[in-house]
Amino acid sequence: MIQTPYLLFLGDAPDKLAAKVAQGIKDWRPELAVGQLRLPGCNADMGLEDLTLDEAVARGAKTLVIGVANRGGFISGGWMRVLTDALSAGLDIASGLHTLLGDDETLVEHARAQGRSLHDVRIPREPYPIANGQKRSGKRCLLIGTDCSVGKMYTALCLEREMQQRGMKASFRATGQTGILITGSGVPLDAVVADFMAGAVEHLTPANDADHWDVIEGQGSIFHPSYSGVSLALIHGGQPDAMILCDEPNRPHMRGLPDYQAQSFESLRDTALVMARIVNPACEVTGVALNTSAMGEQEGLDYARKVEDRLGLPTVDPFRHGAARLVDALP
Amino acid sequence: MIQTPYLLFLGDAPDKLAAKVAQGIKDWRPELAVGQLRLPGCNADMGLEDLTLDEAVARGAKTLVIGVANRGGFISGGWMRVLTDALSAGLDIASGLHTLLGDDETLVEHARAQGRSLHDVRIPREPYPIANGQKRSGKRCLLIGTDCSVGKMYTALCLEREMQQRGMKASFRATGQTGILITGSGVPLDAVVADFMAGAVEHLTPANDADHWDVIEGQGSIFHPSYSGVSLALIHGGQPDAMILCDEPNRPHMRGLPDYQAQSFESLRDTALVMARIVNPACEVTGVALNTSAMGEQEGLDYARKVEDRLGLPTVDPFRHGAARLVDALP
Repeated sequence: MIQTPYLLFLGDAPDKLAAKVAQGIKDWRPELAVGQLRLPGCNADMGLEDLTLDEAVARGAKTLVIGVANRGGFISGGWMRVLTDALSAGLDIASGLHTLLGDDETLVEHARAQGRSLHDVRIPREPYPIANGQKRSGKRCLLIGTDCSVGKMYTALCLEREMQQRGMKASFRATGQTGILITGSGVPLDAVVADFMAGAVEHLTPANDADHWDVIEGQGSIFHPSYSGVSLALIHGGQPDAMILCDEPNRPHMRGLPDYQAQSFESLRDTALVMARIVNPACEVTGVALNTSAMGEQEGLDYARKVEDRLGLPTVDPFRHGAARLVDALP
Repeated sequence: MIQTPYLLFLGDAPDKLAAKVAQGIKDWRPELAVGQLRLPGCNADMGLEDLTLDEAVARGAKTLVIGVANRGGFISGGWMRVLTDALSAGLDIASGLHTLLGDDETLVEHARAQGRSLHDVRIPREPYPIANGQKRSGKRCLLIGTDCSVGKMYTALCLEREMQQRGMKASFRATGQTGILITGSGVPLDAVVADFMAGAVEHLTPANDADHWDVIEGQGSIFHPSYSGVSLALIHGGQPDAMILCDEPNRPHMRGLPDYQAQSFESLRDTALVMARIVNPACEVTGVALNTSAMGEQEGLDYARKVEDRLGLPTVDPFRHGAARLVDALP
């Protein structure tokens, strides 16, 4: 297990989206973060106190969490000094990057010498089976996106919170490094070998009480050319009873792809349902979750109303206004 | 490089489909196989001479190719004796199984002691990039299936042969172990880490002459719950100009999934086009390739005619009757 509390390392994050690991911990487990550490050029800010490594240790920090994800997941050269210094200062390191701490000889040697631990939450920890497609008990809700980083994980965490507050049986199922760092378990799906993706999702959402809901964090989009295969494996492995469409309005283009615009809600709904009904003929799209954080309060509400009128589905920004209407609409 | 010729190891293959690696080599590079080696209970037969290890070596065999793929790709206990004996007899071993020869200490030790090589063609040999979705020159044809093992690789090899016989520029692009063992290069896509699947396909089919065709071997089906993510990554990484639907008629259920029937050609065509047109708006479905090997000659022709009338697309069994009409229909 990863020791807490954390110091959140933001590196040289070019924007807030790049620091979504840190932001997720800040939003959902703020009590676990004693502060943040930023390098020159960092444009992200969690609103936490900026601390040196020694200051963080003095406040009880046990682990430096790499809270920034750069495209491709490499450990940049500029970070290495901070990481080795963190080990020297007495901190473990936890990372969800593609490039593994445990593959870096310098870090491995240094950690061993200092008696510290390196946690790569992106490493799949067990051999997953090939998906068998068999129907299993319990209910499942999957968040599906128009794009990457549109609020699928937040929506799932909002849903879990709302359902638990109502006394419903509900489990957030993390499929990415942030969710795993927040909840302590899950499947790092984009690091799983291709053939076992859907099987890993089946493994993550096993048979359960008939009235239990797995709320499955989505990844990417079935329409995102770089990551669509992961998103489709979530649909086919997850056998969802309900899917909720997730979007961040007014993106200039799909994340990382300047030549690509997001497809329409209607196309996403229709195509995802074709896919989902192969594994669960009863599946329905039951709502829309918007990330309106870049809009004013009224602008966000007006936008949600327009989407709701257009699609005939309850449409909310669950982080801003709660997930109650989305939970009401579940079958 | 893998040394030739081969002895094809069929193990205890329960049926012919399970021995598709051996069958592919037999059909497309028969001059490379000196014979076959089968264990008790083997129900596959390549029509090659059954040889002992020593007999094969005497006929010049250099490599034992594991020509059978069991579900999940494990090396069964009953095979180990044969593999160690093969190394002792002076043969290298080549395998496309998920479970790696190179991860087995006994085999690694034995190969080292004997001075022999272990080839795992399933190991991705280079770090693939994340797909960038950028348009690139050259043309691409992707084979997409209603199911696994319906003839996508054979159709692709038939297309390449027909195109080259016409003097067209064409390259078969292998995406599975059999194709890699047949052609000596390719990407073992189902062993690639999820995030890099589409990027691996982009890497496999780079910018080329404007009149050059990549004929991309498909994998699985976008409708196969176990492997659909791999199939979708092929569409989004491949940016196909043309897709050809592949099917084996009259399967009782989808491969490995007794509870699942194949979806209709129409649904496959329409859904694949929605996906493909995200990366290439000009993409068309241009034909249907049937594996009618389980049918009589006239029955196969009649079936193809029915499909052709229904879909309005040239429909042939390319392995049986040639791929000319499929090549004629390419844009």
